[in-house]
Amino acid sequence: MGLNSFQTSGNSPGDARCRVGLLGFGPIGLAVARHLTGPGAPPTLNLTHIYDRRAREKQGRQADLLAGLCWTDRFDDLVTSDVEILVDAVPASEPASDYVRAALLAGKSVVTTNKLVVAHHGSKLLTLAERQGRQLRFSSAIGGAMPIVRVLADALAGDRVLAVDAILSGASNAILARMDDLDGDIDAAVADACAHGYADVDPSSDLEGWDAAAKLSVVCALAFGLRVAPEQIEMRTSARVRPEDFKKARLRSGTIRQIAHADFDRDRSVLSVWVAPMFVSKTSPFAGITGPGNAARITAAHAGDIVISGSGAGSEAVAAAAAGDLVAIARDRAAIVPAPILADPRQISGLSDHQLAEAV
Amino acid sequence: MGLNSFQTSGNSPGDARCRVGLLGFGPIGLAVARHLTGPGAPPTLNLTHIYDRRAREKQGRQADLLAGLCWTDRFDDLVTSDVEILVDAVPASEPASDYVRAALLAGKSVVTTNKLVVAHHGSKLLTLAERQGRQLRFSSAIGGAMPIVRVLADALAGDRVLAVDAILSGASNAILARMDDLDGDIDAAVADACAHGYADVDPSSDLEGWDAAAKLSVVCALAFGLRVAPEQIEMRTSARVRPEDFKKARLRSGTIRQIAHADFDRDRSVLSVWVAPMFVSKTSPFAGITGPGNAARITAAHAGDIVISGSGAGSEAVAAAAAGDLVAIARDRAAIVPAPILADPRQISGLSDHQLAEAV
Repeated sequence: MGLNSFQTSGNSPGDARCRVGLLGFGPIGLAVARHLTGPGAPPTLNLTHIYDRRAREKQGRQADLLAGLCWTDRFDDLVTSDVEILVDAVPASEPASDYVRAALLAGKSVVTTNKLVVAHHGSKLLTLAERQGRQLRFSSAIGGAMPIVRVLADALAGDRVLAVDAILSGASNAILARMDDLDGDIDAAVADACAHGYADVDPSSDLEGWDAAAKLSVVCALAFGLRVAPEQIEMRTSARVRPEDFKKARLRSGTIRQIAHADFDRDRSVLSVWVAPMFVSKTSPFAGITGPGNAARITAAHAGDIVISGSGAGSEAVAAAAAGDLVAIARDRAAIVPAPILADPRQISGLSDHQLAEAV
Repeated sequence: MGLNSFQTSGNSPGDARCRVGLLGFGPIGLAVARHLTGPGAPPTLNLTHIYDRRAREKQGRQADLLAGLCWTDRFDDLVTSDVEILVDAVPASEPASDYVRAALLAGKSVVTTNKLVVAHHGSKLLTLAERQGRQLRFSSAIGGAMPIVRVLADALAGDRVLAVDAILSGASNAILARMDDLDGDIDAAVADACAHGYADVDPSSDLEGWDAAAKLSVVCALAFGLRVAPEQIEMRTSARVRPEDFKKARLRSGTIRQIAHADFDRDRSVLSVWVAPMFVSKTSPFAGITGPGNAARITAAHAGDIVISGSGAGSEAVAAAAAGDLVAIARDRAAIVPAPILADPRQISGLSDHQLAEAV
């Protein structure tokens, strides 16, 4: 099997299906399971195992297809099973990176939906995957259905990325967009975003910028080949944006969004990187992004500006992106993936140094 | 070598560079040559040969680096050379598909920038490439720097595409956008687009819809696995759009763009596909596309709407996309690419059957 240029899902006659195991049966795990067993499921994939700490209880609640799979509450059962790819959808309370490492060591490929695993352990885990002759893919961990990982890693592989501006936190975007709509304060917008399932009851990690910063650190690895920890990224909170700020932004023909920014001066080895609520003009690609949408403007030396957008949250969007990774691994099982060799920038600067900075 | 998730250009120590030959030294060939030899060129690639019918004359006009390469006016010299990948950038007057076939038969991988080669011969050539254990890639043939091929073939490989609406002809877009700006007739806009290098002196194939239809036929293969010839796609000309039409569109808070549309009803096996000048609302992703920009809204069953845009014309944008294909082949030389098995839709319908049709 190799990678392909025309879409091959369903077009590989005689190809034995690739056995898939699922780690975690929360909202995302459920969406992945439904995606892989529902109508129109990728025909090259065969979901056989599900691990969850409360496997028995959750299995009991499933009907037909899913109930008939092999459920377990012991992670080791998946490691010793014959599944070829594990999908990491475990909740934050479990040691996801330990699971990913153990799976790779056991000769499984892994698709992770977990941004923190990639942001904090991505480089080492990719090296391990290469050594094991297996793949670790993470398209669904950053951007949801917005294909920013594919565009940076593949489409722009022959170009030089100069800068990325992006909405990476679906929850923050839903809250800020709702504030603008309601002309109300942030508490009402948070309540509304929670009611729609776009944000957690406590969205402070989204509003402070931690969610976007974790994703932005992965973007810096993909775009510039740089090692940047989320903690090194300057953040300004979006929690203190007020209705008056939106009024002012409207007078300037724009609105406010949480923007994650990175640009890299290769000659000086200076990375400028930050997450902050920013004024965005009505004509920018960001002003029109509502709900839990994600968007990115990627500026490359030769391609110029590429703009992408898509649903950044929602378990179905994440499941669809994870399925794309699974299909890629299934059709290219033999590929050995060279791990990245990341460099450290000489200097990392934040928002205050950046000419585009327009704090609220 | 395998495919990679972090960007690897420059990160593969000890990796021998992949030898590349260039077919055709027109504007696109020149841009590819500069891209592969200029500052920041992908370090895994080594341009060694250039074929052009007027090789001697063109070589004489080059300075330093390019002049020192191996130039030839005999295509066979490239076929028998030790280059591993050929970039097809030959002008329309030459039999590009014959060249691509001969290159694959000689064991070379091929990156083509030529939409007509892919639209008319893509399926057979991809089958040949698979049989030869080589790759044929064509990201730069459709959409320029807009990564529509990557998004359809890779990012959405695990999803089901339902519909695509797109601006695929950079020249048509530049002309229509300019008419709107100038509030003038089409002749002035054509002259302006020509002056900027966005359109040929005779842009009738763009305005009639042939350019977009050829690209749309490839989109149908990628998105739906369908075999659709450009001739089967209904087209309405954009050459008869008048300044009054733009005035009317402005009154409705929108403008006019040449839109290429395809949606596929899988249950009934009915493909609806057309190219026509359409009213697009100011809030659509299309109204803001100016100059030779391309844009696409892809609707998938699980991912929802994904919007992408980028420069659709210009030799630098094409060269950057072609370089991305070259890097992908260089880092995955061993991959065998399964060819698509395309189906024929039971029925192909055009614009008149489509509820969204809003002819000018």
